[in-house]
Amino acid sequence: MHIKVEELEQMEQRKRAQLINSLGGFKSVVMLGTQNVQGQTNLAIFSSFFHLGANPALCGVIVRPDNGERHSLNNIMATELYTINHVHQAIYQQAHQTSASYPALQSEFAATGLTEQWLGNFFAPFVQESRVKMAVQLVQRVDLDINGTILLIGKILEIHLPDNIISHDGFIDLEAAGSLTLSGLDSYHRTQKIARLSYAKPDLPVKILD
Amino acid sequence: MHIKVEELEQMEQRKRAQLINSLGGFKSVVMLGTQNVQGQTNLAIFSSFFHLGANPALCGVIVRPDNGERHSLNNIMATELYTINHVHQAIYQQAHQTSASYPALQSEFAATGLTEQWLGNFFAPFVQESRVKMAVQLVQRVDLDINGTILLIGKILEIHLPDNIISHDGFIDLEAAGSLTLSGLDSYHRTQKIARLSYAKPDLPVKILD
Repeated sequence: MHIKVEELEQMEQRKRAQLINSLGGFKSVVMLGTQNVQGQTNLAIFSSFFHLGANPALCGVIVRPDNGERHSLNNIMATELYTINHVHQAIYQQAHQTSASYPALQSEFAATGLTEQWLGNFFAPFVQESRVKMAVQLVQRVDLDINGTILLIGKILEIHLPDNIISHDGFIDLEAAGSLTLSGLDSYHRTQKIARLSYAKPDLPVKILD
Repeated sequence: MHIKVEELEQMEQRKRAQLINSLGGFKSVVMLGTQNVQGQTNLAIFSSFFHLGANPALCGVIVRPDNGERHSLNNIMATELYTINHVHQAIYQQAHQTSASYPALQSEFAATGLTEQWLGNFFAPFVQESRVKMAVQLVQRVDLDINGTILLIGKILEIHLPDNIISHDGFIDLEAAGSLTLSGLDSYHRTQKIARLSYAKPDLPVKILD
């Protein structure tokens, strides 16, 4: 099957959104926790969270164009602090529900039954039910003029995760933590490990690590 | 388990790279096909490909800091054109092997046994073995000063995929296509669908779609 750019441009808007969102492949799915200066918490699902660098430890997330009603964006711009919380099967429906357009004064925590968790003195709320979570500080906002989306670059300040999922080499077994992956706009998937592969070098065959 | 930023900064470099790469969650894994103006082809695996917008159809990929030896980056800057090719289980070891540091004059196609495929008049090579693939044109390069990485934003020009994996609503069943997901630097996973969920609205419970 072959789809050309002209057909894409003429496609009904929601159908195109599903199609193009699917093409990116399987995606990370996390909930972003924030709080505004009045103490109002917010929780929102994002499928655009990604690794940006290990030294310093940086992550990126794409936010949709600023229409004034982006509560996560507003809170991050005001406070610079947010949490990233992985999603597993027991909470994926609640995580998905955080994408509904709740009014600014309604917390998605209360609306979905997920529990605010305050760790250390960090300003933004974590999701208690989540197993892999991070405290993050905004370090740069990059406005992408081409379509109005915004790349928020954050520095990872703290990591919370179960004891038994980190290998001696630093690898985190997200499958053991039950972290899910998303495809398209709304399709949730568990994973099934095939293998870890050795660091690739020219003229050396790939080896399965474990 | 709790890891603070000070511990991250003191961690042995490769261990930190594994750890921080894992935290992003499950990632898309694709091969990026290019050709330089002399006709030399290149193929490289990327785990930082992501959806950036549906109208126009845009995708992003993060490239590591330009050290002069980034063949994919050089080719894209010179020609603007590249292909994105999903990875499935029959080719994941070859896909991984494309990450080895081959010299500029050696094509990863020949080195790994993957097959160049020329579709239409598109300048860059596709991977014949791949099932879901796109022709992309560079529309913007964004240098991220904070760590020297580069965001390449591309416009999707053409899509090639199997006939039977696209739903009436535009959703592409990547699991049926066998597309894999990656965690950390080197762990490959199949997926197992849990469910598609309905578009979330306040005060309406989430529904399983199919």
